Amino acid sequence: MKTQYDSRPIGIFDSGVGGLTVLKELLAAFPNENFIYLGDTARVPYGAKSTRTIERYTIQVADFLIRRNVKGLVAACNTASALGLGALRAHCDTPVLGVIQPGCQQAMEHIKDKNSHIGIIGTRSTIASGAYPNTLALFEPQLKVSSLACPLFVPLVEEGWLEHTATRIIVEENLAPFIKNPVDILILGCTHYPVLKPVIAQILGKKTILIDSAEAVSESLGKLFKKVILPTQNNNTQMVEFYVTDVADRFQEVAGRFLDSLNVASVEMVDL
Amino acid sequence: MKTQYDSRPIGIFDSGVGGLTVLKELLAAFPNENFIYLGDTARVPYGAKSTRTIERYTIQVADFLIRRNVKGLVAACNTASALGLGALRAHCDTPVLGVIQPGCQQAMEHIKDKNSHIGIIGTRSTIASGAYPNTLALFEPQLKVSSLACPLFVPLVEEGWLEHTATRIIVEENLAPFIKNPVDILILGCTHYPVLKPVIAQILGKKTILIDSAEAVSESLGKLFKKVILPTQNNNTQMVEFYVTDVADRFQEVAGRFLDSLNVASVEMVDL
Repeated sequence: MKTQYDSRPIGIFDSGVGGLTVLKELLAAFPNENFIYLGDTARVPYGAKSTRTIERYTIQVADFLIRRNVKGLVAACNTASALGLGALRAHCDTPVLGVIQPGCQQAMEHIKDKNSHIGIIGTRSTIASGAYPNTLALFEPQLKVSSLACPLFVPLVEEGWLEHTATRIIVEENLAPFIKNPVDILILGCTHYPVLKPVIAQILGKKTILIDSAEAVSESLGKLFKKVILPTQNNNTQMVEFYVTDVADRFQEVAGRFLDSLNVASVEMVDL
Repeated sequence: MKTQYDSRPIGIFDSGVGGLTVLKELLAAFPNENFIYLGDTARVPYGAKSTRTIERYTIQVADFLIRRNVKGLVAACNTASALGLGALRAHCDTPVLGVIQPGCQQAMEHIKDKNSHIGIIGTRSTIASGAYPNTLALFEPQLKVSSLACPLFVPLVEEGWLEHTATRIIVEENLAPFIKNPVDILILGCTHYPVLKPVIAQILGKKTILIDSAEAVSESLGKLFKKVILPTQNNNTQMVEFYVTDVADRFQEVAGRFLDSLNVASVEMVDL
């Protein structure tokens, strides 16, 4: 008889702290599963880097988690998901889940008709990759999809300028094309952006539905559990290990902006 | 008889494009010398990274240039100069020049008396290192020195938001302590900041002297030529080689914001 359970942890990675928004959703959705989080804080941000570099970094980060015996990998970073997953899937047998497909799926659930206009915002590299429009086209080829790179949003969030006048001006100017040609749905294609949801919602108005792919990932992981990853039988307290590639101080400080309740108690630094 | 000349190039490095402001000064000051510029664009920015990580990256970057047979190294990055040079000097015999000492020296030349108030702005890591106040104290222990980290200035410059309302608001808010307690001299302790000189000058007023360490580096290199580095006898056209650790496209684009005349024609990508 085949084994029905797998007590190994799930590996989840990001270029830095943004992926904690995804981790938070997964911890709540899978309270018996253990997780290992790796933030590549020495090489953060990924958002303006090339496909070649992101592929290399994604594989190095995943290899660390695979060596720690994870049963599945979650790329909780839009840029790594958009540019690195093809190479990663070719490189390893461990099941890999990115954030692009779940985000697109969730957007599709809110679509009223084929004439809906979907907006996507993300880092320079995510937008240049075309990963979101290409994935949306698999669901519905005739959708109107518009993409915008918003490279200043990440530093603003990292520095905690969340509801500042300057932030409002920058967000407004970046989203100007979506004020001129309103979108029905806006995919927040970077794990940092949900922190700016209040400002974005205020600027685009109530008619635009904001999609936060972090929320969608746990649903997709649930599907993976039915297909390729076995759940744990663990009834003990949920365990999370944190690793970073640069010293942990600032990770712990910035992590607070992403997680209200989750206590990032102990973080270990590793060289990749 | 000892050799009087050394035709090898000078190595100059930065986390990315900022060091080009220093390169530009050096090219003009030493028209017969050849240079090799390396921008660590895959791992840019250094500004929020730890000493340990910056030491490691600085040594890797320098080793690449040393393998290319340079006769001297210029760390054209304030963060690498502030945190990485001790480790680099212990690691290699090649003469190394940073930007901190030249910047401080230039500031001292503008000081009227011991009661002068010197301000320093830089990245989070540069400011946390205390490198500038420590170096200034070697010149004059009783100076009043105030430091401010301005972590959003680098992304604003990289994205070309140079004279925008949002930039003005962010610069104004960051420099507020220097508006309240005016400084006689402000050291621009990051190679990106000179691009924001017009905004900074407007906000702090004409009484504050702005020190751009890029300008000071060529004077210090001139002194090194008299002491430890031999000049070239080369009378051919000046040669500059450019290397980056990520693909070159964006380097060439952003480089234009730093260099008016210098043509960054051919850039090679390398793995460190």
